[in-house]
Parts: sequence; structure tokens; C-alpha cells
Amino acid sequence: MNRQELVQLIRERKSYLCIGLDTDIHKIPKHLLSHPDPIFAFNKAIIDATKDICVAYKINTAFYECQGIRGWESLQRTVEYIPKEIFTIADAKRGDIGNTSTYYAKTFYETYGFDSVTVAPYMGRDSVEPFLAFSEKWAIVLGLTSNEGSRDVQQLQLDGGGFVYEQVMKTTASWGTPDNMMFVVGATKADVVADIRRLLPDHFFLVPGVGAQGGSLKEISEKGMNKEVGLLVNASRAVIYAGNDEKFAEDARAVALQYQAEMAQYITL
Amino acid sequence: MNRQELVQLIRERKSYLCIGLDTDIHKIPKHLLSHPDPIFAFNKAIIDATKDICVAYKINTAFYECQGIRGWESLQRTVEYIPKEIFTIADAKRGDIGNTSTYYAKTFYETYGFDSVTVAPYMGRDSVEPFLAFSEKWAIVLGLTSNEGSRDVQQLQLDGGGFVYEQVMKTTASWGTPDNMMFVVGATKADVVADIRRLLPDHFFLVPGVGAQGGSLKEISEKGMNKEVGLLVNASRAVIYAGNDEKFAEDARAVALQYQAEMAQYITL
Repeated sequence: MNRQELVQLIRERKSYLCIGLDTDIHKIPKHLLSHPDPIFAFNKAIIDATKDICVAYKINTAFYECQGIRGWESLQRTVEYIPKEIFTIADAKRGDIGNTSTYYAKTFYETYGFDSVTVAPYMGRDSVEPFLAFSEKWAIVLGLTSNEGSRDVQQLQLDGGGFVYEQVMKTTASWGTPDNMMFVVGATKADVVADIRRLLPDHFFLVPGVGAQGGSLKEISEKGMNKEVGLLVNASRAVIYAGNDEKFAEDARAVALQYQAEMAQYITL
Repeated sequence: MNRQELVQLIRERKSYLCIGLDTDIHKIPKHLLSHPDPIFAFNKAIIDATKDICVAYKINTAFYECQGIRGWESLQRTVEYIPKEIFTIADAKRGDIGNTSTYYAKTFYETYGFDSVTVAPYMGRDSVEPFLAFSEKWAIVLGLTSNEGSRDVQQLQLDGGGFVYEQVMKTTASWGTPDNMMFVVGATKADVVADIRRLLPDHFFLVPGVGAQGGSLKEISEKGMNKEVGLLVNASRAVIYAGNDEKFAEDARAVALQYQAEMAQYITL
């Protein structure tokens, strides 16, 4: 999917909601466990209930990988089931030296057909660039994450001023364009989001950490939006585990609708 | 596998050779392509030919993931085929926030049964610690990598002196012990290996970049060894693609034997 299509989708739906399918076999409603593929059955119901109010689905691969080959089957069924007009994110946080990153890019863009994949920048340019070489596919590079551990590396202070994450985002941005690169920007620090928006006025930011992790949608939207919205705000647990019985999908829809209604107030597109 | 067992294996075999099974379907001998699982057929032959002269096998997951579910089947068959007395490394470079890293740890330690997994440190403490919570399992954290892109983040200079990678290794080391943590230390910079050895006298280093990537085994061994050897030196392409016809496994053994013979000269255990 290209940027124009993504922006158009946001405009039509008055939504920049990304739903994270962090589907944990231990947390899904018990009645699904008799299904031959409980994780897919759960995801299918969530997708059916929310596909008209979000603009993206994010699949965190860890939840699928830990189920072994069966988990990859659930992942594949899920991404194939997502309607083609919705943006898909493989939240895989990959990154390796050149030729190896190319294999990761092919894995998620071609083997599974995702629009984008999250990329860890620690290994530098030749680990990130292979993800930028595919038409209408996106690398979503970790900039500043929302967890406590972001202090340990990302928030180290550099000689000459600034933090590691600022330098990482500035340098990384120069390897691609706002048409093939986004950044992960943690939502627990709204003021910092404003600073990062000044640094990178045109890029989309994928913002985790709203909902269960505690960021404010209002603040993030005020401080992080650009003229094309430029945000994909992710909620995972707050949406998908809103309920835990036969009507879990309805409950998920209700929470997703709350997010979407709030987003509609902030969108000026 | 615990540290005593690993050191004992190195002592017995006079070898600290790790063989990287970066098995690329496009590079293996043509006659294997008619096998129902060509990648496993290749790995099996390489393992049969080298299992008495190396102490570790490293599987870079990217080469398997890009084949989809079939690739994970090849990976699983391969790791199950490796004799239990040999150390196994999932070179997966994973890392995510707390509960998600736990799922990655379970994936590689439990679902597939690896002894260790490589971990990207960009997200900090809560992304690394979950990999340290399993008995006789190892996190191998990216310290300084051997690629050009290591300049972009790892070699940034910090306020107060030192490089990002030094701070990362020092801080990360404090979360674990030399019994559950190793570091990836790139071999193209032998002087730097000496500095890192002073910083971390007791940890094992996984050293890629000898062979096809150009590092010198002699220099690395002189500058990187500690009293327990403390090195796993990896060669991938130089060994596994030494030949490309019916006798590829013999050719691989011949190259691996050269490495082992050279290593035997350096080991003082």
C-alpha cells in the first residue's frame, strides 16, 4: 500500500486506529479452544468485528512464533484474511547484516504479504536499507519505544548533544523517504512526540502504548499529527481482550469504536 | 548447556569453532533439490561431516523464515538432528518489550530447544532480561557487529566518553552473569576485541566475521581469549559452501578441519 492510499483510508474512516493482534492462546475465550486453530478463530472474529473502523492491523510475531509451526499457520491465515484495503504490519523487530535483512524483508513482504515490518536499527544502515527496496512496502524503524528499558540505550546522551534515539531517527530517515519508512514512537511521553514531530515533519509514526500501556490519545494526537495525520495509533490488549466470553468480538468492537469516535474529533483531513 | 560443559567440550575437541548453517536454497548443490526437504538434507550432510570438530552450530533464522512454514520445518528438523552435546545458537536477533520477549525466549529455548538465542539490545533491560530467566539457556546480546552499519548506532560517541556499544555491553552485562549471557563481538576489528575483553574479562564472545567476512582468526584469538577460551568463532559460508557438488560435505569438513587445527594451536586449556 502506498502513502496516498493510506491517507485516503484514514480520511474515509476518520480513523488512524491500528489494532494489535497480540493473540495469546492463554488469554482468549475458553470456548474457542475446541476450534482446530483457536488463534485464527479469535483473530477472524476480531477482524470481522473491527475491519470497518480501523486502518491497520499489527501482528506481533512473538505470540505466533512461540506456538511453533502451528503458530506460523495461524499467522498466515490471519494476514490472508485481513481485507486488502487495510494496512498490515508485521511487528517482528527484525534486523541483520545486508543479505540477511533482505531475507527478512522477503519473509514478511513476499512470503506472508505484509505491507510493512518493524525493524530494529542497532546494526545500522546495511541492516535497514534492504527493507526499503520493495515497491509500496514499508520499514517501520524503532525510534523511541514506550517501555522502561528505552532509557538504557535509546536515551543515552551523545557527545555534542541529543539522545541516541534522535540521532538514530535523523540518520535512518536519510536512508529512505516518508513513502517507504515510518518510525515507532512511544506514546507514554507526549512532549517528546512533539519534539520528534519537529525533527521529522513528514513521516508516519506508529504509536504503541495507548490503552493498556497508558498513553493519552488526545495528547499524542495534538502533539504528533501532521497535515496528513501521520499517525497510526495502536491498541492491542485494550481492544482484543475487552471481553472474554461469547460476545468478545462485540466488546472489542465497542472499545475500537470509542477510539475511532475520539480520533474523528481530532482529524482535520 | 551450562558453561562448564561448554568449556569442557572446547577442551576435548581443541576447537572453539561454530559453524553457521546459513543455508540458502539458491546456493546449495543442485542434486539436493529433488530431496523433499533440500535445506535439511544439506544441513544433515554438513552436520554429519563436521559434528566432531566444531563445538557449536548457529542457525540464522532469516534463511529459514523466508521459506515460510516449510522453512520452519527445515529449521526444526535441523536443530533436532544436532547432537545434544553440541551448543546450539538461534541467530534470530530478537528483542521486544517484557512479556513479548518472554514469548521469543520460549520460542527458541522451549519450542525448538536451542541452547541460546541472539538478542538485539536497542529496547533495553526489559527486552533482554526475559532471555536470562531460563536455566542453562543463554542470551547472546549484540555488542559490536562486524558490518559497516555498526558505525551508525553502535559507534556513536557518548557524552562523557566511550561508544554506545561499550555502554551497551557494560550495562547489559550487569543484568546477567557470564553463565547466562554472551556477546556478539565483530571480528573485523581485532584491536577493539582486546579492549572489549578488558571490559568483560569473563564472558564468552560469539565472533562472526572470520572467513568470508575477512577477520583474522589468529588476531582475534590472541586478543579475545580468556582463561576458559571465552570465544566461539563462527564461520558460515567459508565452511558450508566450500564445495558445490556431490562431495560438498567432504569439502566443508576439510575447511572446518583447517580452522580446528589452527584453533588447536591457540588453545592453552
